[in-house]
Amino acid sequence: MSIWQPILPYNAVCCRYSEIGTKGRNRGDFVRHLNEGLKRRLDAIFGGVRFEEERGRVYMYPSQERLLTAEEVEALRREIPALPGIASVSPGWRCGRNDLAAVEDYIRKTFPVVYEAFAKAFPLEQRTYAMRVNRIDKNFPLRSQEMEMRFADWILSEHRDLKLDLKAPKLRIGVDLRPDGIFIDYERIQGAGGLPAGSGGRALALLSGGIDSPVACYEMIRRGTYVDFVTFHSSPYTPEAGLTKICDLARVLNGFQKRGRVVAVNLLPLQKAIRDTCEEKFRTIHYRRNMMRLASVVAEFFEDEALVTGDNLGQVASQTLTNMRVIEDACPMMILRPLLVYDKLGIIDVAQKIGTFDISQIQVPDSCTVFAPVGPSTHANLGAVRADEAKLDLAPLLKQCLEQTTIMSTLNYAAHSFTELLEAPLPM
Amino acid sequence: MSIWQPILPYNAVCCRYSEIGTKGRNRGDFVRHLNEGLKRRLDAIFGGVRFEEERGRVYMYPSQERLLTAEEVEALRREIPALPGIASVSPGWRCGRNDLAAVEDYIRKTFPVVYEAFAKAFPLEQRTYAMRVNRIDKNFPLRSQEMEMRFADWILSEHRDLKLDLKAPKLRIGVDLRPDGIFIDYERIQGAGGLPAGSGGRALALLSGGIDSPVACYEMIRRGTYVDFVTFHSSPYTPEAGLTKICDLARVLNGFQKRGRVVAVNLLPLQKAIRDTCEEKFRTIHYRRNMMRLASVVAEFFEDEALVTGDNLGQVASQTLTNMRVIEDACPMMILRPLLVYDKLGIIDVAQKIGTFDISQIQVPDSCTVFAPVGPSTHANLGAVRADEAKLDLAPLLKQCLEQTTIMSTLNYAAHSFTELLEAPLPM
Repeated sequence: MSIWQPILPYNAVCCRYSEIGTKGRNRGDFVRHLNEGLKRRLDAIFGGVRFEEERGRVYMYPSQERLLTAEEVEALRREIPALPGIASVSPGWRCGRNDLAAVEDYIRKTFPVVYEAFAKAFPLEQRTYAMRVNRIDKNFPLRSQEMEMRFADWILSEHRDLKLDLKAPKLRIGVDLRPDGIFIDYERIQGAGGLPAGSGGRALALLSGGIDSPVACYEMIRRGTYVDFVTFHSSPYTPEAGLTKICDLARVLNGFQKRGRVVAVNLLPLQKAIRDTCEEKFRTIHYRRNMMRLASVVAEFFEDEALVTGDNLGQVASQTLTNMRVIEDACPMMILRPLLVYDKLGIIDVAQKIGTFDISQIQVPDSCTVFAPVGPSTHANLGAVRADEAKLDLAPLLKQCLEQTTIMSTLNYAAHSFTELLEAPLPM
Repeated sequence: MSIWQPILPYNAVCCRYSEIGTKGRNRGDFVRHLNEGLKRRLDAIFGGVRFEEERGRVYMYPSQERLLTAEEVEALRREIPALPGIASVSPGWRCGRNDLAAVEDYIRKTFPVVYEAFAKAFPLEQRTYAMRVNRIDKNFPLRSQEMEMRFADWILSEHRDLKLDLKAPKLRIGVDLRPDGIFIDYERIQGAGGLPAGSGGRALALLSGGIDSPVACYEMIRRGTYVDFVTFHSSPYTPEAGLTKICDLARVLNGFQKRGRVVAVNLLPLQKAIRDTCEEKFRTIHYRRNMMRLASVVAEFFEDEALVTGDNLGQVASQTLTNMRVIEDACPMMILRPLLVYDKLGIIDVAQKIGTFDISQIQVPDSCTVFAPVGPSTHANLGAVRADEAKLDLAPLLKQCLEQTTIMSTLNYAAHSFTELLEAPLPM
């Protein structure tokens, strides 16, 4: 459903957790990670915010007491749907405790504006509403139900086409009566669900310039995993612009987590040897087997626990179970494939939501296109691939790739040397 | 959006492929798998159907020429959204070639009924329509645009509140002009997307009585993988009802693919040894490491290429990357985790759509509850787990479990012996 709500006088934002409520033991950690993520985003939108936590909710106010601007509310509507760990967010109105008169005044002033937009968006049969009063402050003079009835009398007398529907109302008026204040909202902006970024585990993702791998990274972040990035190039056969693009993608992804590191490995020494020595139809598989080996070295160094790929069943002819298995055979680490059963349209939707789609659309040749075979094997035989690979003297080739490995700055695209990796043991 | 369409005189169904159109080389195979899947479902709904294929579409008619019943149309609306490889399905009206008069007659008769329901479901502002004429038969007397304009003249003069919207109309009138007939529809029932069942690869899924693992199986099937099932029990510590439940789940899942086999392994010999010998906090991890070993034996025997689990990041305290890695360490096969980044609510939605949710809700004790530890390790150390496991004499224990392994019939719940497994090599 598109957002039909008008922009009203709002002075606060209420944020609700996603699955966080179910995590008994780690709850404190989860809330901390969630608030860090919220603060990163909301600080940017509002230029400084103040938090107030209460039982499964976080209330947020601009650091100077003022109304939210239309631009800020639009920014919430645009950015919150991608934020990990958030169930929903409501811009709304906060006023002092026990102040029934202020609540009535606010609703009487704002409801006509809401109703006008509502009636335009929904046909007569669907104009259902509910007021939900959440009376956390038991000292409040009216009980929840009394309050709901009091407002229903007024609302229904003024708007005879409205019907009460407590289960799935199209229009929901939320009133929270808390010991330290009242909060009123008409709108719930859905968050991305999942778990707060950084609340569970660490992984190293293989990030390419395509549409899929940035979405794979985001989905891991959305389920609480901290993600570092590794990418492969074939300099000077692939242009500098490829690495710029990867940094741009990583910068967008880092908007959802504490900054992940970006490592760039030059695969060319291996690719040349593979081109000269191995069967053409296995070339892509040999590339991928060695990408996994090299990524494992980086992951072990960073103490990341798994590799993440954008693998997706059946999307291209070579993404068969058989080929995945032959590639995993060379990998000493666990491989996670968050997009395994996604449909392409679903992947594109996420890429657009998080803002990586347009960057991925920029066409730059990458490692995979270098010496790409004409007829790649779609069901490679593991024994044949191993035998073909045995013709290579792998260890020195992997070393050469690691010698040409850098850490990239996502801010200014500078490449820094990463000689520490040369001390790491090779996964052979 | 709920389905607002009325039931009209329909005599045929048009089925459109999902991503199948993109698979150049394997197209023939994909279409064959898709049609088998469609035929299985539609035969059951209609008591026999006749197919007609044409360029990215399949037209289906009841074997005897007749109108569809209201029950059949409702069955389509209920069952098609779970069918793999289908983009959408439309019940509609087929009439003879070149018969412009019949098209006009059908639309003039049915449109008022459609309009009435449409106007109830959408407010004035949203009452947009488009007629899309697809003129595959180039001999048809009118061009597509001429035909669209001819009907627009009539429709808009009768219904002045309708607005033309070619991009995203709320009401879409489809007219296909094909060499062997005309097809008219007002409704598109969305299919499950994905790829036709059985079109790519084979895997063995660990099926438990929970909500997640049946959904993991379905998602693999939905992306074209054929899935066999293995389950673990602890007879006589776990009841017979556990296996009945697994057979019921597998029968539902087999409704979406050619029948997958169900193997039941008794884990109790191993569980007793683990209880008596190993650290309590590692018990669940030892169970799972050995489930993976035993499942690998079954998968190798069936020539399945991977194991499938319902693993989901962060859902329970023990589903950490660390623990997944420690469990995968014992597994000689590739492990696929289709639900890795799913949210719980999303998993429940799919379970309800495919019909496994209610079965999963039946409470029966399973293997995991037998000797379950009080404080299971959430971040197990791989070295410590390996050392703890080394206290076991694994080979004879695995053999005992395989001796108590059966193949189950999903029709009558009978258990058949599976002694062939005893000849298979152990993954040690």
